[in-house]
Amino acid sequence: MLCLSGSFSQGAVLAEEKTREDWKKLGNNFELLKKDRTSRARLGRLATPHVVIETPVFMPVGTQGTVKALAPDRLREQLRVPIFLCNSYHLHLRPGEEVVQAAGGLHRFISWDGALLTDSGGFQVFSLAQLVKVDDKGVQFRSHLDGSVHNLTPKEAIRIQNSLGADIIMILDQCVGFPASIFEQQEAVRRTVIWAKESKEVFDSPSQQLFAIVQGGMEEELRINCAREMVRIGFDGYALGGLSVGEPKPLMYRIIEATEPFLPVDKPRYLMGVGSPESIIEAVKRGVDMFDCVLPTRNARNGSLLTRRGKINIDRKQFSQDFRPLDPDCRCYTCQNFSRAYLRHLFKAGEILAAELATIHNLFFMVELMENIRQALREEVFEQFSQEFLSGYQEG
Amino acid sequence: MLCLSGSFSQGAVLAEEKTREDWKKLGNNFELLKKDRTSRARLGRLATPHVVIETPVFMPVGTQGTVKALAPDRLREQLRVPIFLCNSYHLHLRPGEEVVQAAGGLHRFISWDGALLTDSGGFQVFSLAQLVKVDDKGVQFRSHLDGSVHNLTPKEAIRIQNSLGADIIMILDQCVGFPASIFEQQEAVRRTVIWAKESKEVFDSPSQQLFAIVQGGMEEELRINCAREMVRIGFDGYALGGLSVGEPKPLMYRIIEATEPFLPVDKPRYLMGVGSPESIIEAVKRGVDMFDCVLPTRNARNGSLLTRRGKINIDRKQFSQDFRPLDPDCRCYTCQNFSRAYLRHLFKAGEILAAELATIHNLFFMVELMENIRQALREEVFEQFSQEFLSGYQEG
Repeated sequence: MLCLSGSFSQGAVLAEEKTREDWKKLGNNFELLKKDRTSRARLGRLATPHVVIETPVFMPVGTQGTVKALAPDRLREQLRVPIFLCNSYHLHLRPGEEVVQAAGGLHRFISWDGALLTDSGGFQVFSLAQLVKVDDKGVQFRSHLDGSVHNLTPKEAIRIQNSLGADIIMILDQCVGFPASIFEQQEAVRRTVIWAKESKEVFDSPSQQLFAIVQGGMEEELRINCAREMVRIGFDGYALGGLSVGEPKPLMYRIIEATEPFLPVDKPRYLMGVGSPESIIEAVKRGVDMFDCVLPTRNARNGSLLTRRGKINIDRKQFSQDFRPLDPDCRCYTCQNFSRAYLRHLFKAGEILAAELATIHNLFFMVELMENIRQALREEVFEQFSQEFLSGYQEG
Repeated sequence: MLCLSGSFSQGAVLAEEKTREDWKKLGNNFELLKKDRTSRARLGRLATPHVVIETPVFMPVGTQGTVKALAPDRLREQLRVPIFLCNSYHLHLRPGEEVVQAAGGLHRFISWDGALLTDSGGFQVFSLAQLVKVDDKGVQFRSHLDGSVHNLTPKEAIRIQNSLGADIIMILDQCVGFPASIFEQQEAVRRTVIWAKESKEVFDSPSQQLFAIVQGGMEEELRINCAREMVRIGFDGYALGGLSVGEPKPLMYRIIEATEPFLPVDKPRYLMGVGSPESIIEAVKRGVDMFDCVLPTRNARNGSLLTRRGKINIDRKQFSQDFRPLDPDCRCYTCQNFSRAYLRHLFKAGEILAAELATIHNLFFMVELMENIRQALREEVFEQFSQEFLSGYQEG
């Protein structure tokens, strides 16, 4: 596999390829560098076979094997993104993990020398596909592409993700929506724990890390029980799933707060599907290290752009003769070269370039936000930083 | 205006900003460097306020103010494109030349420091818009966007193109399709000559060059008469319009052959809307210096990719596990980093990145073809080069 050039220096440092045994010798995949004194926030370092990633980190989503509208050279060289997420569900259906494996693995197939994370497909099966049957053995679903019927078991999810070859892979979990009955939430936890055990048993990939997913809906007790079970089984990292599914934000924050003390301090914590700058800061405060969300890239393609004061919608008439950059202080390629008026024109004209330039800007914003969070933690001014950021930023 | 970095070195060399008066002092905008001994092919240099362009040159099309799916840094740094074409018709309707002018001109609006050419809008009015009325004064048409009625006169076409501020601008012409009656073709020539005179009279832009367009359908005598009239009026360059409109290729070549002797040797000749590698080589043989065509970029977005052996359609099943680059000898970003299987996957998955990577490849192919043509002319082996190229390339 390829190693990295110096271009990751701000987001991650060069790592030689290490096997799982090497990591074991090192004692851990995660190093806790600093704990904030006024919150549960942590500064850390997550080692993967491709790069060492500084945390807290935001992972863009590259659903089908590319971050939408962005080539990997921009992602790496211009945006300094150390890791992004691909979807096993999508890649399994198209082009199929056997194609990716024959190409030499996902990194080589998509030409990416940073780290990759694949999710298990659980979330897509319960949201995007048409569910046929769920039982303790696994899930049967119809493909959203052609209606064909597929079985996904915990073992199969691991096999698919082994074939894809991402640095970090996820157990199959059962995600319930919001609101859901206590019974549904209990069942999802019970099943997810069974699946976690099976996943751990079959997992045997020297160059990958396996993360658990904690479920439990909006019930603190269920979350705590699920976290305890997952820690008992033992994983390389712990994700919080089934959040950011429509619940009020204060409720999500409360669930994170309740669960976090039951997760090991020496392992990374990953809040799935989050998110917005505000939610990320609030979750970092509560001890979360990793995030992923489609919104910065999806919003970009819809012309909704992130600035320090909040989102702006670039297709508004007021920008038609506004020749300033989106954000005059932003150092991204888009802001350094193009005006709001030109971006608006590209969106109005339906030009593909609109999607690329907007995606560059929104991801640059997220990368810089995470750099600023880490810098504030390093300098022990995180409380001040987060107050200042949140007072200037209007969530839209 | 911005000057160029060294990145244009292969396609063009750095030019200080010069006014029309400076060019006049230099004697001409075009320098003929070499004439081929076995054909009418020419090696030349076309000076513009932004760059000096080596000819023969292919100009990609950037209809609405961007080459589709490509940001200007790639176009300049990775593809070494010295000039591309924008459409006055499209930019007049959206965002409007007043917006572009307020931005500081087209170069600044779109962040492009190479050269630009705008066409007059004539071709779009006769092909894309709904024609209301044509007379000797000009054209009345309905916008293809909203049906609004607009008038385009020779003077208005110059005014719009002055406001846009491209390096090279075109007179308004009347284009007839194929086939067309002798009467239609005669009328189009008569009117285009009237319009050319009016265009020349009102043209007064120190930093722009004005090119004539020779019409005359498929009638050699009409073409020759039109060329003579245009040369009598006097322009900075001479385009052949109304070709590549559905006629057989041998007919087009015959028209070029018939017209070319009546064009001044010390001015650039531009064949509009061409084209394919084969047609470009045949037209270079017949004394043409400049080309533009949407096909390399439009085909790219449809998955039709240029190789030395001809076009291939990347979405074919046979490429699903073909892990070779599109063209193993190609040095473009796409071929250096991605396989046919990955490109096929991106097309099948409808990813925006497919359009970008395919466009990079097809334009790189065209740029390299033109570099090879110029190199062959420089080394006096053009006849041999064109034979070798055409025997290996199957037009599809």
